[in-house]
Order: sequence, then structure tokens, then C-alpha cells
Amino acid sequence: METIKEYPFTFLKMFNNVLVDLIKFVMVQKNKILRYFTLVTTLVLFLSCLGDPPASMRTTSYDVTKPDKVFYWKMTTTWPPNFPVVGEVAEKYSKWVDELSNGQIKIKVYGGGELVPPLEAFDVVSQGTIEMGCGAAYYWAGKTPAAQFFAAVPFGMNSQQITSWLETGGGYELWKKTYAKFNLVPFMGGNTGVQMGGWFNREINSVEDFKGLKMRLPGIGGKVLEKAGGAAVLVAGSEVYTSLERGVIDATEWIGPYHDYKMGFHKIAKYYYTPGWHETGSQLEFFINKNLYDGLPPHLQAVLEAASKRAQVWVLAEFDRQNGIYLDKLINEEGVEVREFSKETLDALRGFTDEAIQEMIGDDPLSKEVYESYSSFQKKISKWSEVTEKAYYNKIQK
Amino acid sequence: METIKEYPFTFLKMFNNVLVDLIKFVMVQKNKILRYFTLVTTLVLFLSCLGDPPASMRTTSYDVTKPDKVFYWKMTTTWPPNFPVVGEVAEKYSKWVDELSNGQIKIKVYGGGELVPPLEAFDVVSQGTIEMGCGAAYYWAGKTPAAQFFAAVPFGMNSQQITSWLETGGGYELWKKTYAKFNLVPFMGGNTGVQMGGWFNREINSVEDFKGLKMRLPGIGGKVLEKAGGAAVLVAGSEVYTSLERGVIDATEWIGPYHDYKMGFHKIAKYYYTPGWHETGSQLEFFINKNLYDGLPPHLQAVLEAASKRAQVWVLAEFDRQNGIYLDKLINEEGVEVREFSKETLDALRGFTDEAIQEMIGDDPLSKEVYESYSSFQKKISKWSEVTEKAYYNKIQK
Repeated sequence: METIKEYPFTFLKMFNNVLVDLIKFVMVQKNKILRYFTLVTTLVLFLSCLGDPPASMRTTSYDVTKPDKVFYWKMTTTWPPNFPVVGEVAEKYSKWVDELSNGQIKIKVYGGGELVPPLEAFDVVSQGTIEMGCGAAYYWAGKTPAAQFFAAVPFGMNSQQITSWLETGGGYELWKKTYAKFNLVPFMGGNTGVQMGGWFNREINSVEDFKGLKMRLPGIGGKVLEKAGGAAVLVAGSEVYTSLERGVIDATEWIGPYHDYKMGFHKIAKYYYTPGWHETGSQLEFFINKNLYDGLPPHLQAVLEAASKRAQVWVLAEFDRQNGIYLDKLINEEGVEVREFSKETLDALRGFTDEAIQEMIGDDPLSKEVYESYSSFQKKISKWSEVTEKAYYNKIQK
Repeated sequence: METIKEYPFTFLKMFNNVLVDLIKFVMVQKNKILRYFTLVTTLVLFLSCLGDPPASMRTTSYDVTKPDKVFYWKMTTTWPPNFPVVGEVAEKYSKWVDELSNGQIKIKVYGGGELVPPLEAFDVVSQGTIEMGCGAAYYWAGKTPAAQFFAAVPFGMNSQQITSWLETGGGYELWKKTYAKFNLVPFMGGNTGVQMGGWFNREINSVEDFKGLKMRLPGIGGKVLEKAGGAAVLVAGSEVYTSLERGVIDATEWIGPYHDYKMGFHKIAKYYYTPGWHETGSQLEFFINKNLYDGLPPHLQAVLEAASKRAQVWVLAEFDRQNGIYLDKLINEEGVEVREFSKETLDALRGFTDEAIQEMIGDDPLSKEVYESYSSFQKKISKWSEVTEKAYYNKIQK
């Protein structure tokens, strides 16, 4: 049976909070660390080039006199190498781009930590040290709070609605504007769909039950938990399992049945709660150095965009298929009890979320602009979803 | 204000039932009509070539000695020219393919009726007279009943679920198998999302209210209505408005607020019912002559597929955005009353649907094979949707 033990160490050392810890550490010992990282990064990049084509073949700008020139690129991701679905799609993107460009763009994919630490992806692509990256925009909240609206907002839109906002509702233009300040061009990279609400060792019957609850819950979700009287505990991904097992935390969120099963949470937590109010359809991304992208001929720009649409379709499809299979395993083979947060509990959390978002956008005009577009689109599309998708789930789906 | 009057005649003469009438007519006067159509089709194709590149430039197979040869193709659609969303995406597909292939595939799009009648698309592409087509697979039910599962099944999956089935759940392999018998290769071409249940001039409080109801409702939905004691009336698209106005029919279904508003149904029908149990997420398609496709180099095959994924993302996004805008107009400017069919009504219709489908797949092994894949996937993914998307709509969406 697959458990956490089968995962390589890279899987464990990678996730959200390990990065949060790292950032805190960096903030304190800034200058010392900075010199160290620059050295290591340069060394790793140098070494990684050894297996690649000679430098003379590695082009970063388009030469009209050599229209068939091949671009050798690197993609650094925020996920561990071959991480299910979100890591796999980076490899698929590379393959699709190769095919579509008739071999004109060759992208070598590196997992987080292989070339640079996961959360350095934004900076190294921004600077052009590495050509492109793959991640989720909420990782860049520290650079620009507006980024979070292009990944996940508690009580935000679901995947179908976010895709509509990004594709034809004006969201993508704002995303481009937000990233242009960092010399980056963003592209859709898939969506997880509604995530699960997490693993708990106590029943949550009302919002009162969050009081005193120690839960691993990063980002805006963590702020909401604290407003509800709980404690958002920073636990590195590698330590979540043991922290929950030993009672250091009472609860944790992760992704959905497919990934959660492999983490083995069902062995140490009683209740599996839904829905994931903190991540209602997390949007994933590719991002490319803007100077590099702007210098490409239109057909190669089109290739990079079209492959990202393939990713948008594939990721959600694969998440849904695999989560369907693993939910079944969890319930029918592992005896997991799936519970739903009550509407009253969620409505109370929604109130705290509104407070947290107002605080967040208060003194950042760009965040305010993006939030206004996001929330007015959400309001309109929700009315439409109400009479169709909601009615579908309640009355048609058996 | 936009109404039905602004639509050109081509818009009206095109839709579903006019074609059903045509087929019946053809069945009766088969040989006479056949000779006539062959003559007209040949003539139209000949004339349409006059404005195109010289025949010497029109290639239908790949020549390795001339890798930069340009393919000049035609696409014939089942929609009127520039029909909102579904016609627009055909034009977009052509543009995307042109960009992605760096000008190597030039597709000229023709609306239904411009080159050949809409429902001839399948045949002319199958024969290779025209390179590709755009439509929805239920139009080809008469050729192979299995086709319907790749478009819309009453009480079937919604867009998110169908996309998962087609993308990673085995559905696409069956679609290819079904179309290969007709020398065609299918590609996704977008999805409408859950449609509306139709316009009614009487209240539907229970399934009993369908007794004696004369409704325009084609396909399997029509068979279900008849099992419920209603009458599925064949009314050509061009005559739906006046038939409903004059009481020849009591109800009609169409698509969703965006298209329905433009048809002006809100002026002559009292109630706008939801959800569209007969079309829970209609899947659209592109299809290409298989000999032609198989002869293409891999990078151009990849281009045709990637552009279809862009279509899959764009169509649903645009439907959702526009339907959101027009639902608001219908309710707040036109005073339309939106009503939901009760769960009991829908459960009764579901029972009749099961009967109709069993009759349909009874003596067709391919239909049976496709239905088994479809329904087992639906069963598994519905359990997953239940704890996530359904919970989202009921408890998170405000």
C-alpha cells in the first residue's frame, strides 16, 4: 500500500510551510544568507549547464536571419520533481511545446530545489537567470499581495468561474499587469478544483469549535482561523504527519484525496472535512521572463499560450479523475468518515474572510483593483451558476 | 433592443428541427434528392474554389521534401455563420491554427448552408470533399447512435465531469474509435455548460404537468417527454418563435440566456425553467478527415489538437460570462420569472430517460460499450463532486 514512506525526501521538504520557515530565517539573517544563496545558485546553474547543449546554441532572443534557431530553456517549478498532477503537467507542457513548435523550444523541467529553492522561482525568472517557472500565484504574496487573487481566495470562485474570469472576464489582463512589474508573463497552468477542508481530530459542529484549535493552515486561511479564535501553526510539509500524529497540531489541510491518501493522513486523523473554503479552486500557473517572451516570433508566443490551455484542461480533468478514485479508496477501504462543515460555520468564516481581505487590500491600490474585478465577476457569475450548476448538483446528479 | 428580427435568415433556417424535417423528406424521396444534392454540392464546391488559392497550392497530403508547404483547408460548420460563441469559436480555431502552425495550415470557415447543408458536414468531411467540420456529435445519431454520448445525454455529466471523462477518463479513445469507422478524427470544441430547461406557458409543478404538453424538444429528450405523456413537436428553428406565440406549441427549449434573449422568447413565454436536464453540458466538436490527418507531420497534428483545447477553455468561459450578463437582463430588465423544476419532477424524468437509453443501446454493441464507460465514470466522479463542487454551491457560493 502506498504511504508517505514511498515518497522521496524532496517530496517532504518542499511544501508551503517549510518555505514560510525559510523566509523567516532569511529575514533574520538576510545578508549572510544572501551571499550564500547567490554562491550556491550560481554553482548549481553552472553545474546544471554541463549536461545541456553548448552555450553557443542556447539562445534567449530571436534572430530573424535564423528563423529555425532552437531555444533551449529551463523551467524551475515550486513542486517536488514528478509531484503528482501539478509536477506532471510541467513535464507535459514541455512535451507539448516541443511538439507544437516543431522542436524550436526545448524546455528542461527542474523540480523545486533542483536548481534553486522553490520560492526563488519568481525572482530567477524575473531576472532572466532561468527562462520560465511553474507554481501558484499565492506564493508571491510577499512580492505583491494582488498575486493571491490569481491563485486562491477563501470563499472565492470555483474552477469553472475562475477560468471564465481569466479567459474572457478581464482577469487575465490584470494578471499580466500585476506580473509585468516583475518582468514576467503569466499563463494558466491548470486548476485543482474545490479542495478538501482538511483532516481533524475533533468534530467541528460550529465556528466555536475552531477556538483553541491548532491547525496547519497557511495564507489568508490562517488569518481567518485566528480571527475565529484558533491558532494557525506553521508546520513544514515534512513535519505535518508527525505533528498531527503527536498532537502538536489538531488539524491540517492538504489538497484532496489523491495526494492526501499518499500522505497517509487517514491513519492518524478521525474526520475528513469538506469543502475547502480556503481553496475553492486553486489556479496554477506558468510564468516566463517577459523580455524573452516579447522577443519571440508570434508563432512561438502562440505555442506557449496554447500549451498552457492544454494544461488548464488536463490538470482539472486529472485531479477529478484521481480524486474520484482515491475518495472511494479512503471511504470504502480505509473507513474514513467524510463530514461537511455546516452552512452556519462557513458563513461565520466567510465574515472573518471579508475582514481579512479588507485589511489586505487596504493600502495596496493594485490589490484593490484586482479584488474589485474579481468580486464583481464572482457576484454576476454566481447568479448564473445558481440556476444551472447548483441546480444540476442538487437535482440532476444522483 | 436586440431581438429575433436582427438575425439574418440563415440564423433561422438552420437549427435542429429544420434538419430533422429535411432528413424525413430525403428518406422518402431518396434517389431523386440524392442526384440533386450531388449536383448542387459539386457546383457549390466548384464555385467556392474560385476565390481560393489555385488548385496546385491546395495540398491534402504531406510531402517530406517540402516541409514548409501550406495546407489550404475548408471547415464547414453546423451553425449559421458567426453564430454567437459556437460559430465564433470556429473562426478562433482557424486563427489559432494559423498562428500555431506559423501559417502552415490556413482554414477558411464556412457557416452551415454556405457550402453544404449543416447536417452534411459529417459526410463531406468523411469523404474528404471538405477537410474539416465543426458541430456536436448528437447530430450524427442517425449514422451511429453511440455519437450522442459525446455531445449530450439527458441526466448526464456536466461540463467539468465530461471534460474529465474525455481528457483522462478513457472517453476520448472511445470517441476516436466511434469516428474512425467514418474516416474521421474528433477533437473537443468547447462545452456549453448546463443549459436552461426551456420556456413554458404553463406551470410545471410535477411530472403530471407534462401530460398533453406540446413542446419543441428534439433528440432523446423528446422521447423522454413522450414517455411522460407529452408531445415532442418537430418545429424548425425558424418557426419556434411564432409557433410558441400562436400556441401551436406550449413550450420550447433553446440554449441559455444569451441566445434565448436574442430569440426574444421572454416576450411570449411566462416561465423560464431550469435546469436543462436534457442537455447538462453539451460537448461541441471539431472533426477532421482521418486520411488527411494521419498524413500530417506530428507538429501539425499537435497544432490541431492544442487549438481544440483552447476552444474547450474559451467556449465555456464565454458562455458563462455572457449567460451571466443576459440572465441579469432577463430578470431585472424584462421581468422574467426563473423557476426550478422540482426534484420529484426531475427524478421521474430520469426514470423515463433510463428507459429511453436502454432502448437506444439495446441492439448496438458500440453504444453499449460507450454508455458503460460513460455511466461508470459518471458514477465515480459524481461521488467526488458531491463532497466538493456540490458543497461549494450550497455552502460557499453566496
